Amino acid sequence: MKLTILGCYSATPRALTNPTSQVLEIKGKMFLIDCGEGTQVQLRKQKIKFSRISHIFISHLHGDHFFGLPGLVSTFRLLGREKELHIHGPKGIKEAITLLLKLGDSWTNYPLYFHELTSKETELVYEDEKVTVRTIPLKHRVYTNGFLFSEKLGQRTLNIEAVTKYGIDKSAFNNIKNGKDAEASDGKTIKNEELTFDPPKPKSYAFCSDTIYYEAIVPIIAGVDTLYHESTFLDSEERLCQKTKHTTAKQAATIAKMAQAKQLILGHYSTRYKSLELFREEAITVFPNVELAEDGKVFDL
Amino acid sequence: MKLTILGCYSATPRALTNPTSQVLEIKGKMFLIDCGEGTQVQLRKQKIKFSRISHIFISHLHGDHFFGLPGLVSTFRLLGREKELHIHGPKGIKEAITLLLKLGDSWTNYPLYFHELTSKETELVYEDEKVTVRTIPLKHRVYTNGFLFSEKLGQRTLNIEAVTKYGIDKSAFNNIKNGKDAEASDGKTIKNEELTFDPPKPKSYAFCSDTIYYEAIVPIIAGVDTLYHESTFLDSEERLCQKTKHTTAKQAATIAKMAQAKQLILGHYSTRYKSLELFREEAITVFPNVELAEDGKVFDL
Repeated sequence: MKLTILGCYSATPRALTNPTSQVLEIKGKMFLIDCGEGTQVQLRKQKIKFSRISHIFISHLHGDHFFGLPGLVSTFRLLGREKELHIHGPKGIKEAITLLLKLGDSWTNYPLYFHELTSKETELVYEDEKVTVRTIPLKHRVYTNGFLFSEKLGQRTLNIEAVTKYGIDKSAFNNIKNGKDAEASDGKTIKNEELTFDPPKPKSYAFCSDTIYYEAIVPIIAGVDTLYHESTFLDSEERLCQKTKHTTAKQAATIAKMAQAKQLILGHYSTRYKSLELFREEAITVFPNVELAEDGKVFDL
Repeated sequence: MKLTILGCYSATPRALTNPTSQVLEIKGKMFLIDCGEGTQVQLRKQKIKFSRISHIFISHLHGDHFFGLPGLVSTFRLLGREKELHIHGPKGIKEAITLLLKLGDSWTNYPLYFHELTSKETELVYEDEKVTVRTIPLKHRVYTNGFLFSEKLGQRTLNIEAVTKYGIDKSAFNNIKNGKDAEASDGKTIKNEELTFDPPKPKSYAFCSDTIYYEAIVPIIAGVDTLYHESTFLDSEERLCQKTKHTTAKQAATIAKMAQAKQLILGHYSTRYKSLELFREEAITVFPNVELAEDGKVFDL
C-alpha cells in the first residue's frame, strides 16, 4: 500500500497548503479519497496518471473536501477518458455534479456512476477480488463518512523448495496456492501445509476526516494498520472542537490507542499553528507511532 | 486602471498554468472577472485583499471560467466577510452556488446577491458614480457574455493659476469643477473654460472570452482602450475554432482593428503551443499593439 497526500490542511486552499485529498494505491489499484479545490493540479505535480483512478470516495460535502471534483470530472472528459468513473459520496453529490455539467453543457463522454451514501451504519461500498472498502460513519457538522480500505487475504505462498523436492507438476501450483493438497511424483499425497507458507497478512488503512472525537468508530477500525485521523486543533483549542466538530491531536491519538492501530497519521491541520511538530508532540504523549501528513508526502504502508 | 491576470489558459488547470480569472482595478474599485479553479490561491499569490472584491462577473458556466467560484464564496465566509457580494453571471449560476452551499450547510454570513443574465443584447449590468459595466454578448458553445468596463467622464480639472489670478474663493471650487462659471474677487463673472481644463479622457476595458470570431461585438467595443480577446488557437488550427467556438490570434487582432482599439491583450491559450510569442507574431500582422497575458502579469492601462 502506498498513500500519497495531495492536501492535508483544513478550510481554504492557500499558496502553499492544499485542502484534503489523497491517493491510496492498494493491490495495484488507485483510489482517490476526497477532492478539495486544486486536487487535479496536485495529481499532476505528483505525476499520478489520471486514468488509473476509477473510484473516488468523498467523505462529506464541505468545500475543502469536494470543490475540486467538478473540475476533475471535467478534465477526465477533456483528456478523452473512456473508462468508467465511480463516485462514492453523500446523497446530493450526484445532483451537484450533474447540475454543474448540465450548466456547462459538458456531459462526460465516459460512463459516470454515482453511489450515494445515506446510511449511518458502516456498510460495504466497494469490493473486488483483492480489496474491500467499508464506510466509517463519523460525526461532523454534516453527514460524513470515513473509509476503511482492507486487503483481502491472498493466496498461500508456494514453498519452492518443497514442491521441487516432491517433484510436483507445475499444473498443480494454482490449486496448491488455493490451499489444496497435491500429488508427489511418486503418487504420494502431500499436505498443503508442507508445500506452502501462510499468505502475507492483509493490510488495512482507515481514513477518518472530518469528525469530532467519536469512540463509536473504534470497533469498526479495530486493529487497523494505519489510521489517518484528522487533528484540526491542539488540546489548547479543544473548546473549538465542540463548536466546529473537529478533533485535537490528543483525541486522535486516543482513538488510535483504543483501536490498537499500528500507526497514526495526523492531518487536516488548522493553519493557525506555527509548526506541525506540535501535533506530533501532543499525540505521542498518548500513542507512540505518529506520523504527520504533509502535502506531497508519500507513505509506504 | 490596473489589470492583474490571475489565469489566462484554456481548458484544465495545470501545475504552472491557471484557467481564466483576472482582477480589474478601476477608479479605486476592484472587479473580479471569471473565476476558474484555483482563483483564490492566485488572489493570495498576488496579495490582493479579498475584502476589496464586491462584484464578480462570470462570462459563462464552463468549468475553466467558474469552478473556483464556490470555493471563493466559501472562503469569504471563513474570513468573516460582512459586506455584500454581488455575482453577475448567466442564468443557472444562482442555482449552482446555492446548491453547493446548501449541501455543505455552509450558508454565507454576508449578503450574497446574484444578478443573472439572459439577454442576447448588450445591457448595463453595473453602474456607480465613476464606472459602468455593460455586457458584450459573445458566441460560444454556451450562453456567454464579455464585459465592457468604462470610466465615466470625471469632473473638470481646476486651473490653479487662473483661480488664483481671479482671487476666486475656495467654496466655489466644486461648482467650477462641475462646469459652472464663477465670480472673481472684483465681482466679475469668469467663464468656466477660463478656470478649468478638460477632465481626463475616460478609459475603457473590454473582456471578451470565450467566443468564436464574432463581428457583432465591434459596435459595442468601438474605440475601446484595451481589448482582452481570447486567442485559443493560431491560424494553423483555425478549423478547430468552428468546432470548439474559439478564436485565432489573427481573428482576435482583426476584431481589435475593426473596433479601433488602442491595445489588444491576447489570452485563453491552448496549451498545445510551445511559445506564447507565436500568438503575438500572428496578431501583429493585422494589428500593431499586441500584448500577451501571462499568469501573474500586471498591466497598467
